[in-house]
Amino acid sequence: MNAFDNAMKQLDRAAALMELDAATLAKLKTPDATHHFELEVKMDDGSLKTFPAYRVQWNRARGPYKGGIRYAPVVDLDEVKALSFWMAIKTAVVGVPLGGGKGGIVVDPKTLSVGELERLTRAFARALAPHVGPDLDIPAPDMNTSGREMGWFLDEYEKTIGRSAPGVVTGKPLALGGSLGRDAATGRGGFDLLDEVLRRIGIDPVEGKARIAVQGFGNVGAWFAKLAEEAGHTIVAVSDSKGGV
Amino acid sequence: MNAFDNAMKQLDRAAALMELDAATLAKLKTPDATHHFELEVKMDDGSLKTFPAYRVQWNRARGPYKGGIRYAPVVDLDEVKALSFWMAIKTAVVGVPLGGGKGGIVVDPKTLSVGELERLTRAFARALAPHVGPDLDIPAPDMNTSGREMGWFLDEYEKTIGRSAPGVVTGKPLALGGSLGRDAATGRGGFDLLDEVLRRIGIDPVEGKARIAVQGFGNVGAWFAKLAEEAGHTIVAVSDSKGGV
Amino acid sequence: MNAFDNAMKQLDRAAALMELDAATLAKLKTPDATHHFELEVKMDDGSLKTFPAYRVQWNRARGPYKGGIRYAPVVDLDEVKALSFWMAIKTAVVGVPLGGGKGGIVVDPKTLSVGELERLTRAFARALAPHVGPDLDIPAPDMNTSGREMGWFLDEYEKTIGRSAPGVVTGKPLALGGSLGRDAATGRGGFDLLDEVLRRIGIDPVEGKARIAVQGFGNVGAWFAKLAEEAGHTIVAVSDSKGGV
Amino acid sequence: MNAFDNAMKQLDRAAALMELDAATLAKLKTPDATHHFELEVKMDDGSLKTFPAYRVQWNRARGPYKGGIRYAPVVDLDEVKALSFWMAIKTAVVGVPLGGGKGGIVVDPKTLSVGELERLTRAFARALAPHVGPDLDIPAPDMNTSGREMGWFLDEYEKTIGRSAPGVVTGKPLALGGSLGRDAATGRGGFDLLDEVLRRIGIDPVEGKARIAVQGFGNVGAWFAKLAEEAGHTIVAVSDSKGGV
Amino acid sequence: MNAFDNAMKQLDRAAALMELDAATLAKLKTPDATHHFELEVKMDDGSLKTFPAYRVQWNRARGPYKGGIRYAPVVDLDEVKALSFWMAIKTAVVGVPLGGGKGGIVVDPKTLSVGELERLTRAFARALAPHVGPDLDIPAPDMNTSGREMGWFLDEYEKTIGRSAPGVVTGKPLALGGSLGRDAATGRGGFDLLDEVLRRIGIDPVEGKARIAVQGFGNVGAWFAKLAEEAGHTIVAVSDSKGGV
Amino acid sequence: MNAFDNAMKQLDRAAALMELDAATLAKLKTPDATHHFELEVKMDDGSLKTFPAYRVQWNRARGPYKGGIRYAPVVDLDEVKALSFWMAIKTAVVGVPLGGGKGGIVVDPKTLSVGELERLTRAFARALAPHVGPDLDIPAPDMNTSGREMGWFLDEYEKTIGRSAPGVVTGKPLALGGSLGRDAATGRGGFDLLDEVLRRIGIDPVEGKARIAVQGFGNVGAWFAKLAEEAGHTIVAVSDSKGGV
Repeated sequence: MNAFDNAMKQLDRAAALMELDAATLAKLKTPDATHHFELEVKMDDGSLKTFPAYRVQWNRARGPYKGGIRYAPVVDLDEVKALSFWMAIKTAVVGVPLGGGKGGIVVDPKTLSVGELERLTRAFARALAPHVGPDLDIPAPDMNTSGREMGWFLDEYEKTIGRSAPGVVTGKPLALGGSLGRDAATGRGGFDLLDEVLRRIGIDPVEGKARIAVQGFGNVGAWFAKLAEEAGHTIVAVSDSKGGV
Repeated sequence: MNAFDNAMKQLDRAAALMELDAATLAKLKTPDATHHFELEVKMDDGSLKTFPAYRVQWNRARGPYKGGIRYAPVVDLDEVKALSFWMAIKTAVVGVPLGGGKGGIVVDPKTLSVGELERLTRAFARALAPHVGPDLDIPAPDMNTSGREMGWFLDEYEKTIGRSAPGVVTGKPLALGGSLGRDAATGRGGFDLLDEVLRRIGIDPVEGKARIAVQGFGNVGAWFAKLAEEAGHTIVAVSDSKGGV
Repeated sequence: MNAFDNAMKQLDRAAALMELDAATLAKLKTPDATHHFELEVKMDDGSLKTFPAYRVQWNRARGPYKGGIRYAPVVDLDEVKALSFWMAIKTAVVGVPLGGGKGGIVVDPKTLSVGELERLTRAFARALAPHVGPDLDIPAPDMNTSGREMGWFLDEYEKTIGRSAPGVVTGKPLALGGSLGRDAATGRGGFDLLDEVLRRIGIDPVEGKARIAVQGFGNVGAWFAKLAEEAGHTIVAVSDSKGGV
Repeated sequence: MNAFDNAMKQLDRAAALMELDAATLAKLKTPDATHHFELEVKMDDGSLKTFPAYRVQWNRARGPYKGGIRYAPVVDLDEVKALSFWMAIKTAVVGVPLGGGKGGIVVDPKTLSVGELERLTRAFARALAPHVGPDLDIPAPDMNTSGREMGWFLDEYEKTIGRSAPGVVTGKPLALGGSLGRDAATGRGGFDLLDEVLRRIGIDPVEGKARIAVQGFGNVGAWFAKLAEEAGHTIVAVSDSKGGV
Repeated sequence: MNAFDNAMKQLDRAAALMELDAATLAKLKTPDATHHFELEVKMDDGSLKTFPAYRVQWNRARGPYKGGIRYAPVVDLDEVKALSFWMAIKTAVVGVPLGGGKGGIVVDPKTLSVGELERLTRAFARALAPHVGPDLDIPAPDMNTSGREMGWFLDEYEKTIGRSAPGVVTGKPLALGGSLGRDAATGRGGFDLLDEVLRRIGIDPVEGKARIAVQGFGNVGAWFAKLAEEAGHTIVAVSDSKGGV
Repeated sequence: MNAFDNAMKQLDRAAALMELDAATLAKLKTPDATHHFELEVKMDDGSLKTFPAYRVQWNRARGPYKGGIRYAPVVDLDEVKALSFWMAIKTAVVGVPLGGGKGGIVVDPKTLSVGELERLTRAFARALAPHVGPDLDIPAPDMNTSGREMGWFLDEYEKTIGRSAPGVVTGKPLALGGSLGRDAATGRGGFDLLDEVLRRIGIDPVEGKARIAVQGFGNVGAWFAKLAEEAGHTIVAVSDSKGGV
């Protein structure tokens, strides 16, 4: 089952439980808008290349759209729609005044030079300028993007609108107003769930320590492992796409 | 062969003839942007329904995007992209300072009441408001839309931006600033080609008169038949989707 | 009967003749908006005085609101509403793409110095700035205002919005883009009706010449008299508020 | 004596005590602006009805205008002007960076369906859109309006301006960013004055407890009674427009 | 005497002749504003270089500022101010609703590649974006700039503001909306003065033909020579900075 | 050595120490923009006078430009550029999200009446309105300007943009949202350095008290003296431009 069908099944189950009216359910099942652009980039060899880019804006009933921008050679639009929907649900569940969105560019970033990546990111920022903003839609780093891309995006956005607006993206470098702790945040989120998981499988999270195998050892898995280790648990194995120990 | 593949083949042939550089050709093969919305409409029975709507903005190197808005139960996005591309080429060929665009709503208008159609059209106008305008993108009537829909669109657009802007659509009612002769324009365009066609098949367009069968007898075919008849030609047969005489 | 009741009676009669639907009639009987301001002016003696000012915007279904700004010690709001309504009807009857409006300041302009009048007019232009514009509402001279006031208004409006917009007022001085012939226009309008009046009372307007008494000899009466005299008619008497000859 | 005359008498007394200069006094006696609209609403039976609506903006020397929107069958403009003036004074006395305003719609809300009330409120939000905002004028619930109306107003305002702006109204539902405790706020305000009242009539507010009759038992009176009871006072009688116990 | 002192002397003489009041004279002697920018350009070798750029906006009492943009290795600000002042006078003398401005970039364009020139021009367009526009300030080609630079400027300006605005510059390529005849315009202006010059020196411009030496043979001189030749005059000599025949 | 040469020398030294790349160093050595205006003011005697005014915007990589506005009969542009550069460095060193700017008017404020000063300040605010704002450039008092001028500036700015924006200036009066302690801030800044100075010259700042001579006894020197005295130090001498004790 693909991600989007899965997400809609979850929504249907929740709607049945809470006896949600049909109109609201229908509204929750459709994005407000999807914007597609073809970004032109002057490549280092002087040629002109276009890259498809998009932004799904799912729902902003509770506040500005919020969600990452990813760079990937193949884009599964259904997955992006699912992620965009889940962002809208997640921000509501934790009670922050934000909605949900998600987007990206169809590109294999490993095949571009840093200069080409910068020009691509800046082209996206200019195309998205009328659609984002601290009160409208707030991108963030996602797969294959990081603080560097957010810094380019922010700089181009501010140049386009002609004033400072650091709130247009999160996950930007600290020097540009980024948040402390953002680097570790997703890994720490997993670690914060560990106690609850232990409790549910019958282990006292204060007394009993766990032996943990970590699957995936990028930013998230590495931070999780580090925090779990510090808390007294034992990391017995780690693995990523290349292998495991 | 679908419409879009056909359009791109035409472009490739033209590009080869004029030895167009690869970058410009690549640029001409991609739309600037495509905007998708899910329009919510309160139906007469009180329920809330959403309708997908989109706008393809192909190219505005020469001026604002220009092209119709159609209402159809099934939307062939490739056809719409082709039509949007052809608009960009057509405006350039005749030398008007306009680009090309096209859009529509996925709806069978025959299943909606007039009130529902009005609310649907107004919802589209509000969603499109930041993307259209006399200097940006200028819709027009197309399949299943007419002056009535343009009047609703114009009124809603002006309410949203808070000032008069009759130039945001063409094909609007005369009382709202529409152009005289617009009703007959497409049929007259066909009629204007008749002389050239006759000449190419060896008939002197001043002396020789033709016997003409008209396939399709809506707004375009009816006006063509009327104008050809007035010019001395003989209409020997007409037909539409229901039958022929 | 006051002017407004009279205007509404006219409207009711016309509505009955054309079998106008109740909703449209109700809409035609109410202004879109009325804006009241209290304008602060620093007087020549250093004191601060406030003057009530208002703008009635009756209807802009056909285009931007259009109508004069008057300065008068007593304002009869019903009269202004009637004039505003009549502007909407007049612009529709002659088929120009404009709506109707009217406004003014409660002030006896004879008691103010030129400097005070200029500061008062500029204060009104700043208060009205978000409500007027070439695409929204276009004032003109009226009772006790002229090209001089329009020049001040235009200059202040352009300073406030930060760009040129000569179309925000009509009746401005020629050097600022005013129209040739505007000075004589209202008198000429009366003169243009003369032939029709003569015809209706059985006089051939080409052959028969009239003996005319002109009541009121300001800008309108004087131009009418001049034009009628030039056309071969005889002005036998003129009068104004001070007396007659 | 009507409310506005009363308010101006209070102002005159205060001005005399503080020897306020004449210009400032004159400025304090006049509103900055009053906006009147005629709101069109499509009624459930398909007919079109217009409702007068207005907004008085008294003074924003200290910050954005602030004050409620009321729905009432008869509007006493003098009372509204007085309330608007008092808002400007109240915000200054408590030292919040806000000015004063007040407004409403002439309608008996009990005669409208919920759908009609929603369409009426949304029409007001669109008409007021250029005149309100977190930095300009911030409405709130008042007589016959509540969080529900503020939610509609906020949603329509955000749709009109095309971005999130929850600060445009206060008194909105908690889920849309409303403030905790707002429901009890006015009643608690009365209760907070109780100690001072007791002290002035010679009762130690810590030791001595009072026997209290509460006149009016809507939102304000009920919360006051509840808080006073909890603080050890005795509610001996309550009454509202229907009767008393 | 430098150009600016010369211009001010001319103004003083004219002011004396027409008995101009001191305040207006003072106003005519000062520009409204001068904007300086330091434009950053990424050079072909990857380095970052900054170029000073400026725009003098002399006077817009009669309409938007109007005047060229020049690229020159040394900028004589007094000369630019003089040219800007003369533009304001020239537009007034011929009665077009425009004011006067002038600007440029301190750069030797011969030392830059086409790509660097394009990036420099686009950087200027973005910096000037809030200061120019069809209703505010309308640049044109000048020394070392031509339709090519205006095309870059226009494209970048339209991208920055997000809509079409071909009126922001004159002298743009025909395909982008430039005016026919613009190429020959300055030379034709000189030719149009020839009759008057002949008349003043006692030659009948219809009968008598002149023998003319043309000093300077760029765009202006070449067009003048061509037009004079066609009118029957004889060009006996031409010269430019390299030599003469 | 003038202030600007000195500042650039400091920058060169720092750049060498940190091995700053040439492009960033070049960028740090040039202001983003300098805006010059000629402000027209109606003088008390009815004459019109123009005053040169300017604003240097050095760098906003880290946030809105920030820096004072000074009124002085002679303006040393090099000094202002130096001060603007130092503001950019200072805000970065203390880690506040602001850039650097500086500006002023060429005027001897002692020769103007209060009314003329107010009109001059308001003219500057209107000219600067598109260039300043809480997200763009935030002026403050400087030489010969104070809370009074900031209040005028703020009021005029808010009138021009049509909404409240107290964040456009700092150093405004407390009643308009100014910060407590701003009056003493610069003197307190000097005092805060005293301990460090004492430590460096070998005095324990807790035990050892100093004997201090204060050169300059305006706002800064007076507050420094007061704070130092209160901290137990002894002020043995003070002096200003008129003399010393």
